[in-house]
Amino acid sequence: MTERKKPWGGRFSGATDARVEDFTASIDFDKRLYRYDIEGSVAHCRMLAHQGIISDDDARVIATGLKEIEEDIEEGRFSYSRSCEDIHMAIEQELIERIGSVGGKLHSGRSRNDQIALDIRMYLRDEVDAVRGNIQALQDTLLMLARREVGTVMPGYTHLQKAQPVLLGHYFLAFWEMLERDAERLKDCRRRIDVMPLGSGALAGTGLPINREYVAELLQFPAVTQNSMDAVSDRDFVAEFIFDSSLIMAHLSRLCEDLIIWSTDEFSYIVIADSYTTGSSLMPQKKNPDVAELVRGKTGRVYGNLTVLLTLLKGLPMTYNRDLQEDKEPLFDTVDTVKACLSIVRGMLENVDVNREKMRREAAKGFAVATDLAEYLVMRGVPFREAHHIVGRLVASCVAGDKDLSALSLEDYRAVSDRFDDDVMEVLSVERSVNARTVTGGTSHDGVMKRSERIEKKDQSS
Amino acid sequence: MTERKKPWGGRFSGATDARVEDFTASIDFDKRLYRYDIEGSVAHCRMLAHQGIISDDDARVIATGLKEIEEDIEEGRFSYSRSCEDIHMAIEQELIERIGSVGGKLHSGRSRNDQIALDIRMYLRDEVDAVRGNIQALQDTLLMLARREVGTVMPGYTHLQKAQPVLLGHYFLAFWEMLERDAERLKDCRRRIDVMPLGSGALAGTGLPINREYVAELLQFPAVTQNSMDAVSDRDFVAEFIFDSSLIMAHLSRLCEDLIIWSTDEFSYIVIADSYTTGSSLMPQKKNPDVAELVRGKTGRVYGNLTVLLTLLKGLPMTYNRDLQEDKEPLFDTVDTVKACLSIVRGMLENVDVNREKMRREAAKGFAVATDLAEYLVMRGVPFREAHHIVGRLVASCVAGDKDLSALSLEDYRAVSDRFDDDVMEVLSVERSVNARTVTGGTSHDGVMKRSERIEKKDQSS
Amino acid sequence: MTERKKPWGGRFSGATDARVEDFTASIDFDKRLYRYDIEGSVAHCRMLAHQGIISDDDARVIATGLKEIEEDIEEGRFSYSRSCEDIHMAIEQELIERIGSVGGKLHSGRSRNDQIALDIRMYLRDEVDAVRGNIQALQDTLLMLARREVGTVMPGYTHLQKAQPVLLGHYFLAFWEMLERDAERLKDCRRRIDVMPLGSGALAGTGLPINREYVAELLQFPAVTQNSMDAVSDRDFVAEFIFDSSLIMAHLSRLCEDLIIWSTDEFSYIVIADSYTTGSSLMPQKKNPDVAELVRGKTGRVYGNLTVLLTLLKGLPMTYNRDLQEDKEPLFDTVDTVKACLSIVRGMLENVDVNREKMRREAAKGFAVATDLAEYLVMRGVPFREAHHIVGRLVASCVAGDKDLSALSLEDYRAVSDRFDDDVMEVLSVERSVNARTVTGGTSHDGVMKRSERIEKKDQSS
Amino acid sequence: MTERKKPWGGRFSGATDARVEDFTASIDFDKRLYRYDIEGSVAHCRMLAHQGIISDDDARVIATGLKEIEEDIEEGRFSYSRSCEDIHMAIEQELIERIGSVGGKLHSGRSRNDQIALDIRMYLRDEVDAVRGNIQALQDTLLMLARREVGTVMPGYTHLQKAQPVLLGHYFLAFWEMLERDAERLKDCRRRIDVMPLGSGALAGTGLPINREYVAELLQFPAVTQNSMDAVSDRDFVAEFIFDSSLIMAHLSRLCEDLIIWSTDEFSYIVIADSYTTGSSLMPQKKNPDVAELVRGKTGRVYGNLTVLLTLLKGLPMTYNRDLQEDKEPLFDTVDTVKACLSIVRGMLENVDVNREKMRREAAKGFAVATDLAEYLVMRGVPFREAHHIVGRLVASCVAGDKDLSALSLEDYRAVSDRFDDDVMEVLSVERSVNARTVTGGTSHDGVMKRSERIEKKDQSS
Repeated sequence: MTERKKPWGGRFSGATDARVEDFTASIDFDKRLYRYDIEGSVAHCRMLAHQGIISDDDARVIATGLKEIEEDIEEGRFSYSRSCEDIHMAIEQELIERIGSVGGKLHSGRSRNDQIALDIRMYLRDEVDAVRGNIQALQDTLLMLARREVGTVMPGYTHLQKAQPVLLGHYFLAFWEMLERDAERLKDCRRRIDVMPLGSGALAGTGLPINREYVAELLQFPAVTQNSMDAVSDRDFVAEFIFDSSLIMAHLSRLCEDLIIWSTDEFSYIVIADSYTTGSSLMPQKKNPDVAELVRGKTGRVYGNLTVLLTLLKGLPMTYNRDLQEDKEPLFDTVDTVKACLSIVRGMLENVDVNREKMRREAAKGFAVATDLAEYLVMRGVPFREAHHIVGRLVASCVAGDKDLSALSLEDYRAVSDRFDDDVMEVLSVERSVNARTVTGGTSHDGVMKRSERIEKKDQSS
Repeated sequence: MTERKKPWGGRFSGATDARVEDFTASIDFDKRLYRYDIEGSVAHCRMLAHQGIISDDDARVIATGLKEIEEDIEEGRFSYSRSCEDIHMAIEQELIERIGSVGGKLHSGRSRNDQIALDIRMYLRDEVDAVRGNIQALQDTLLMLARREVGTVMPGYTHLQKAQPVLLGHYFLAFWEMLERDAERLKDCRRRIDVMPLGSGALAGTGLPINREYVAELLQFPAVTQNSMDAVSDRDFVAEFIFDSSLIMAHLSRLCEDLIIWSTDEFSYIVIADSYTTGSSLMPQKKNPDVAELVRGKTGRVYGNLTVLLTLLKGLPMTYNRDLQEDKEPLFDTVDTVKACLSIVRGMLENVDVNREKMRREAAKGFAVATDLAEYLVMRGVPFREAHHIVGRLVASCVAGDKDLSALSLEDYRAVSDRFDDDVMEVLSVERSVNARTVTGGTSHDGVMKRSERIEKKDQSS
Repeated sequence: MTERKKPWGGRFSGATDARVEDFTASIDFDKRLYRYDIEGSVAHCRMLAHQGIISDDDARVIATGLKEIEEDIEEGRFSYSRSCEDIHMAIEQELIERIGSVGGKLHSGRSRNDQIALDIRMYLRDEVDAVRGNIQALQDTLLMLARREVGTVMPGYTHLQKAQPVLLGHYFLAFWEMLERDAERLKDCRRRIDVMPLGSGALAGTGLPINREYVAELLQFPAVTQNSMDAVSDRDFVAEFIFDSSLIMAHLSRLCEDLIIWSTDEFSYIVIADSYTTGSSLMPQKKNPDVAELVRGKTGRVYGNLTVLLTLLKGLPMTYNRDLQEDKEPLFDTVDTVKACLSIVRGMLENVDVNREKMRREAAKGFAVATDLAEYLVMRGVPFREAHHIVGRLVASCVAGDKDLSALSLEDYRAVSDRFDDDVMEVLSVERSVNARTVTGGTSHDGVMKRSERIEKKDQSS
Repeated sequence: MTERKKPWGGRFSGATDARVEDFTASIDFDKRLYRYDIEGSVAHCRMLAHQGIISDDDARVIATGLKEIEEDIEEGRFSYSRSCEDIHMAIEQELIERIGSVGGKLHSGRSRNDQIALDIRMYLRDEVDAVRGNIQALQDTLLMLARREVGTVMPGYTHLQKAQPVLLGHYFLAFWEMLERDAERLKDCRRRIDVMPLGSGALAGTGLPINREYVAELLQFPAVTQNSMDAVSDRDFVAEFIFDSSLIMAHLSRLCEDLIIWSTDEFSYIVIADSYTTGSSLMPQKKNPDVAELVRGKTGRVYGNLTVLLTLLKGLPMTYNRDLQEDKEPLFDTVDTVKACLSIVRGMLENVDVNREKMRREAAKGFAVATDLAEYLVMRGVPFREAHHIVGRLVASCVAGDKDLSALSLEDYRAVSDRFDDDVMEVLSVERSVNARTVTGGTSHDGVMKRSERIEKKDQSS
């Protein structure tokens, strides 16, 4: 193809070095924004006509040209050239080639600086909604699992040591809560994305009589940015979105860590379906939780993207600097990664078999009801610290004798404290232990059911 | 001093290795939380009495004991011991030493896991307010400067190249906007901090008939956490606060970068007062913008703290794990750093002399009104791309002849386009250029004044 | 195409979910390794024959088949399928399709775990050499510039304030030194890459009578790994390479920061050629140092890749876990980025015009020789601290009177210290100042020339 | 105390704001460097006398004064003042107060910029040796454990799934190898630390006739830095040390992850001694692997410190900028953390009881010898892929029938492949499996012993 003249080439005598063209071009990745770029351009051009800066006829010709380009791109009929630098230039030059010099009127009153700010905001607004949809879907699965496993007693762990019995349903709801916070953070972030920057020009606004509020209305933005210098160099919302995604990944990595541990032969709490595991090229017997491992691994990827953004922004002089072009790849990669991970974890969870019997059996081990014993004494007036010591001694003697608390007789109990009565034996049941935790947020059957219902009601009303 | 028995020592036969004690102790840094630990304990003990779990008399004795310990700490009369591990144990053991075994009743129905979660939330709630106060103060200074410099024309930069003239007041308002977003993010974060976790126990809640809502009321929390397993291992709000602080630091680093560049001999736009600069041990003539440099440098510090938190959380099995103890030092350091930086930048800004004449002179250089010329042609019907090329050629000829646009005659202008008329000369004024940008968020005198007034009104009403 | 059976599918009943296949496949990016995979396989198969594990005929057939596949890939005649998971499987399956079941003998005595470890090491060994080549080329350019600018006096800066005059040649050599350390680090890293892991199997080695040393010899590795469990999960060398690249980027970002500042209108020390700058879509007069800005921005990208690796490795149980698949994209991206940046910076430096006169003029400003005055007094027995104060007062009086040190008379000098003699005037010359710094590593003309010669001699001998 | 005059105060009229003094002071943390600062100053002053810049008498007085200050600091008799800014100023001012104006001669020919560079290099040189000592000690423990557990068969894991049997001794040697690489990296780093920067002045060297090589000799540096501008702003070695420490922490975190998993009730492979675990304030039965968790958690801390350094260096203009002061706290924290973690992990490992029987029992489960079966077939001429499928089918039938490979009869084996002979039963022994892996780096008894001996021999000879 013939070398097109750079649209900014007026004052330049030397041509751009080919390697420089390659190095600076963003077209390979920012072409993903084409739809938003065109939608934004159409709104801009309608506004230009509305304000009398260009004629209605010109506006119509431009909008039609843009729409045709959009169709060609969607049909795969559009060929990008590196010399176009970026998606904005690629589309504008194509427009001018198609409709002639009237196409050159489109860029009146705007700059690539505010144009790209607009494109990213429109793109990210949509993607935040998509991510929130994926969160909601995973939350629904967790809620379904919580209800299904509301009767499954399992050992609750702290320090990966058995601590107290809990319900598996309660466990699943814990992740529901984390994801709920993630969704809220994204909602807050979206408010800050949803502000219209076009009209900020290169940095100073424009002297043409444009109407920013009109563009905002056309593109369904509730507000416009209030300072042009800030607007063209603001990437806070990109960093914020990637941070929010980092926490989503942290949460998924915690869930996956548990699933990996639970599907070891030693724990045997769950079996992940064949369709969500893979085998070994060497060891014929292997069935590996690769999906969970990859999600855990991809956490680093999103953290890395956050590092990119924060490093970018550090010490950047006002206003727009070309460094900011480096915001897009980490943003796109984060969007892709977090959506894929949320979705695959959902699929995996739906393909997990729970070994309820093993969980129940293990829940009774490891002196899991020791705290219940201490609380029993507290309710009989023993100061907690003392109760804690008494039970500690009981546990120590069990450990020494290699037996369980249920193997002790009432006499054994009374030997360490006369506050123990024959109802102490009831305390040793893990079901009782679990269901005693009726406090708000506790692990009792009723607690899990109540929370599930509250969640469902809220979902239906919202 | 005599070795106190570990409060959890019941089942242990071997003593803790002294190096282990040192390695695991957090008392050196978490003592900062004493006030919140005591306030939380008093509320907890009032609730225990309210629910009949302990007697009113016991509650009174405990609360009085705690308050006396608080006073002693505040007066510097309290000595911490490493063997106490952490502030919670230090206070509880001291309490028991002072008031006897009744002190051992305080820990009924709670665990260190939910206790520390409460302490951090109370602490951070206060500190978020403090940081927001510092942001507000800096915003006030920026607003004052914006009004003061609403008549100061300066070159606006993109790529650190002169782009278009702007008002210095407009520049200051750009940072006001950034800080406003920072404040909003902190407000959103505070909502997520302001949830009461006590009563989540170690991970499962408690079987004692406690009343979490009552404690929340006493401690002025509008809500309680809804899942005990989540509540004891949730540090999302710590990560979120450090991220919000990272963006604050990114913004301050950008401001400082500009101030450093502006106070070079070459720019000479500002002079930072002696009281905010330092000298050289070797070069007698030096006056260095150390404060601005240190703020820029401290950006890395807060970014590093964010790395700590995110790395901590990655792949952590449910629920509480001791790794989480590592959240506190980066949190405390972030609080200290961001408060100090906000405050010192404010002081520095108030001690900056602006060289308005130099700024004005430079604003006229570098073909800063080239865009205005192009827009002039657009308003005369020339397609923008064409106008851009026409002006580009004018600029190129000026560069070749080493002269300015104002040095061209009307004939020169008309030689490249007959759309130029004698009113073109007016376009060459930087004041006109600035004040033409009346679009919302633009840099015109009216724009800056209007925005300042809107901000002030909002401040007064809020 | 028809669904191929997974090579590890023996024990699996359920098929892999299509989304899981997509999620876990690495073929899209690891196909870059095909050449090393095939070279490694050929060596492995020659060893199998050498050890009598397979026949010589089988080995020949396999090697020929592999070579044909390599050619097809290079000619673009090979089509990858997602269901192949990765490049290793894609090649092995294709081999079996082409040469029949004898192809199934290739994987004897190895696993994908040691195979991928081998591929990355071979790939990175080559790329480290390529990066070192790019470093050397940039160093050569810096050396050329150092010699060219050995007579160019410029202001040396600390805190971005003029400090003392230096030679521009000395400045360029400073970056030569940084890059020399970078090259040394890469050389050290290469030693750790250059260890042959094949034969470590999945994690335990193999029971087949293979000969690892023979494979190492064929592939020109000077050593083999010494522990199979370590070898399959070791990615230290990837992290180390990305760290070394991070420092390279830090250095380039510092250079670019200076170039950006120097090409401001205010400094006007350099002009970057048109071919290495770009223009503005809005402002016809702009000429932006985009290349330098992008390099500075890409620093964050490499830092982000380092974050990925370190996050990946944190807390990973032994031995291989699928998380490790996430090492490749950041590695490849780092290789591409650092090579491109080193090369483009070289090109840019060769296209920079130096404004020697401006630099020289500025070097004399800002009391740059104040330190020389103090040293003058020291050589006359005045304690340095006193000398520093005396000169400080002289500077202060000049600042107050808005004049330069050269504007003071001998009487003015003697008024503050009688140690000043009429030779003091010589001290005020920036050339004398620069050339007085003959100390090793100092900025004198002789120093720069000597260092340049030493470097050249070393280069020729090495 | 009375306000001392700033040593650089000559040209300043305004006093430093007290808050600025606080903000910029580094004395609180850099006082750790006092010993190196004094040692460096003594060498500098000896050189000044040697070169005739100051008299021998002056040098003696200064050196004696410095030594007395050192003693006072060591005895805790020295009081630091914030107004001293940093340790260099604190010592120099104290010196002048004690010995009068002759003390003012010490700073001749140097600047704080090269002085601090010297101090950090001397400090870090020592600390690298200390860290390497701790690594060596931990390696010795691992070697001891490897020999002790050379007969302990355990399941080797990939993807946390049982893969093949290995020796526990082999496992320990894997970490020996990782630490060996860590030690090598530190050795490489030390070479880059061990270069003498004094004499670089503020940035340009000095005009006084100093002798840098003489100072290097006195302080036992094998080389001097070759470019003054580079030398005063080079912190590469700090970043490199923190990166090397990051990998050490990554390795320790992997070991700790395994120890945490192994000490779960479910795995029960090890018991960590009471002295290296802690209990629960609520649950009397808990015994938590807190030390291992904290080490894993502290990984984030060191990663965070690396982020600080890299962020600091990004885009820093030449040469020294005050940002660099922020290098010290992350450096000191890294030194402290990595030393403490290496040492505590060693202590913990020495206090771990291994449940050999449980490990042995589990090693036989999970079809751990499936690969051996496949290799058996390979040695009988079956192509590996076919063998892999045959064994995969055997495993699948065992899984379906809930039995082990050893429960199959020879007929069962021959039903899937007639290559199986009655010697197949020998293959099913995990001991045979382990000991068949005699390949270099393999897990056989002989392999582990040979490697241990090689390591010991090397240690003795070095």
